[in-house]
Amino acid sequence: MKFNALNFSGGPGALPETVLAQTRDAIVALPDTGMSVLGMSHRSEWFRSVLEEAEMNIRHLLGLSSDYAITFLQGGSSLLFATIPMNFTARAAAAPEYVTSGYWSAKATAEAAKVTKRNIVWDGKITGYRQLPDLRTLDVAPSAAYLHYVSNETVEGLQFDPCDVGDIAAPLIADMSSDFLSKPFRSDAYSMIYAHAQKNLGPAGVTVAVIRRSLLDRIPDGLPAILDFRTHVLHSSNYNTPPVFAIYVLMLVTRWLRFDIGGLHAMQRINEEKSKRLYATLDALGDAVTIHADPRWRSQMNVSFTFGDKRLDQAFIAAARDHSIVGLEGHRSVGGLRASLYNAVTEEAVESLCLALNEFAVQHV
Amino acid sequence: MKFNALNFSGGPGALPETVLAQTRDAIVALPDTGMSVLGMSHRSEWFRSVLEEAEMNIRHLLGLSSDYAITFLQGGSSLLFATIPMNFTARAAAAPEYVTSGYWSAKATAEAAKVTKRNIVWDGKITGYRQLPDLRTLDVAPSAAYLHYVSNETVEGLQFDPCDVGDIAAPLIADMSSDFLSKPFRSDAYSMIYAHAQKNLGPAGVTVAVIRRSLLDRIPDGLPAILDFRTHVLHSSNYNTPPVFAIYVLMLVTRWLRFDIGGLHAMQRINEEKSKRLYATLDALGDAVTIHADPRWRSQMNVSFTFGDKRLDQAFIAAARDHSIVGLEGHRSVGGLRASLYNAVTEEAVESLCLALNEFAVQHV
Repeated sequence: MKFNALNFSGGPGALPETVLAQTRDAIVALPDTGMSVLGMSHRSEWFRSVLEEAEMNIRHLLGLSSDYAITFLQGGSSLLFATIPMNFTARAAAAPEYVTSGYWSAKATAEAAKVTKRNIVWDGKITGYRQLPDLRTLDVAPSAAYLHYVSNETVEGLQFDPCDVGDIAAPLIADMSSDFLSKPFRSDAYSMIYAHAQKNLGPAGVTVAVIRRSLLDRIPDGLPAILDFRTHVLHSSNYNTPPVFAIYVLMLVTRWLRFDIGGLHAMQRINEEKSKRLYATLDALGDAVTIHADPRWRSQMNVSFTFGDKRLDQAFIAAARDHSIVGLEGHRSVGGLRASLYNAVTEEAVESLCLALNEFAVQHV
Repeated sequence: MKFNALNFSGGPGALPETVLAQTRDAIVALPDTGMSVLGMSHRSEWFRSVLEEAEMNIRHLLGLSSDYAITFLQGGSSLLFATIPMNFTARAAAAPEYVTSGYWSAKATAEAAKVTKRNIVWDGKITGYRQLPDLRTLDVAPSAAYLHYVSNETVEGLQFDPCDVGDIAAPLIADMSSDFLSKPFRSDAYSMIYAHAQKNLGPAGVTVAVIRRSLLDRIPDGLPAILDFRTHVLHSSNYNTPPVFAIYVLMLVTRWLRFDIGGLHAMQRINEEKSKRLYATLDALGDAVTIHADPRWRSQMNVSFTFGDKRLDQAFIAAARDHSIVGLEGHRSVGGLRASLYNAVTEEAVESLCLALNEFAVQHV
């Protein structure tokens, strides 16, 4: 394997080279402190400024007003699948509504049922999770605790158009784990947005949650402190020892996105080019390749496809590896292949993947 | 500040230099993979072997039989304060019993009350958390769900003798966050042991939980998957995306402890020397210094003390910084000074601290 592999993994995903270089240096000694980032106290001035900058970068990138709190949590989306209903259903007049549109939203829906009565307002299972609903036409009770959906289905490669959320009366909650900060969206339409880091934000081990402050009033008293979102807002994400390193890297990534890339519009242009290039290459292969998503809902972040044959898919994984391309294995639940085009995946890497696809098709298909 | 500061922080704490050097290299590319450790998939063969080695090292260091499962969790002790009663009280005949002997065990006791009825079997508050009970003489109902205690009170600097646990009929559960793997102990006396990494094990963001398998039968069905300990045992700590980086560093630290240091008896000798040296220095300063813990319960890991005057304590922190010594601020709940002597704090670092103390005492006290 050549030095530096091109990482198309579904997550943990690629990180920008400049961030990796800064992180490497920080492992031995951070600039100005003489201390390893791994030994820095979470109560230090240094870490307070890391938290503040990470928050400020996200606030700036999304154009979030002070109506929103930004917190950094542990436990990933899987913990939030449980804590969101714990926090937001007890005082609501009606049960929350869930859109079930793929592997991850189905998990969220199933876990919510262990905590609360909940309704499934739309279920894509009968389409084999190849399509998405129009959020604007869903029949959501205005008194519902909230409407929950997953903005990008990482496994199947389906993505909602984030501009198309409409004006739903119930609080809108989105798991944006795999497309957060990949392009601009109407952040003020949401009551809560969450995303774990290991796609577009940093290493595994930290999850960003953006919460409209007025929603915090709906949280019942008596929850364990660590599961009550107010705890993390009140303590500025420093209630118990946070994952200092993961938040540090996340701060560097958001700084890169804000200042090196130039914000979400610039990121969007790059991401559109990348996904257009790859889908065009796959489409040009005709019947030799099947893309999982129906065309209208193709994800810019995760391209889930197959040569229609396990042996061929494996052969392509091996052929790609010879071009230093890795991470193409599809999720175990659907098999096949998946190329994830997260923010830090470069256009050059996508170009290499397209060349490898064409080369492979000529020889094997 | 000189390059490399001597870190006496209460946590995140110092890590071994050799581990930092390997970690630094892995940020850009792991040996044999050409990939950054931050981009490695949690479903890769590489990560499976990291999890296996981390588990094997801990199993070997503690002499644990296959009766015990070892898991790597997120959320720190604070999440376990809630999930332990969620998992182990529903099917028990009697309420769990809690020893309240300092800041952290008081937190555990308070959080448990949000989940279950629980009894306080011993409370050290009236001694100002300067003493500990004899676990062998506590009046614990044999049918109690469990007895919970904190083996080393990080804030106050009190430590139980881990050989003195007796034979309690109820399952024994210990939060060993700040003295885990610092010396040998009778691991088979415990039903559950847990410790977050950022003292003796690695960076913040991962917590080790050792659970006797027979205890898993007591877990009620219907808990959210992420909060049910069986999920993490069944999925070998790879249910949702684990904190890959933190577990990788933890694996390197346990490898260092097992092979470079030579195990827990060797670690114990070093830790005994370090704490003996520091306590002797402080004792020799006579009335100028007050150590928080009563002598019998002095911790080998956290030495909590004060010059009796906020101004003097601050002056010592400044003087120590001139010797590249950092992390001496006491916990905000008790103030004063605290020197933490975790595994990776070297005897040379302790020697520097003792010299700084003597130098300071001559000039200021």
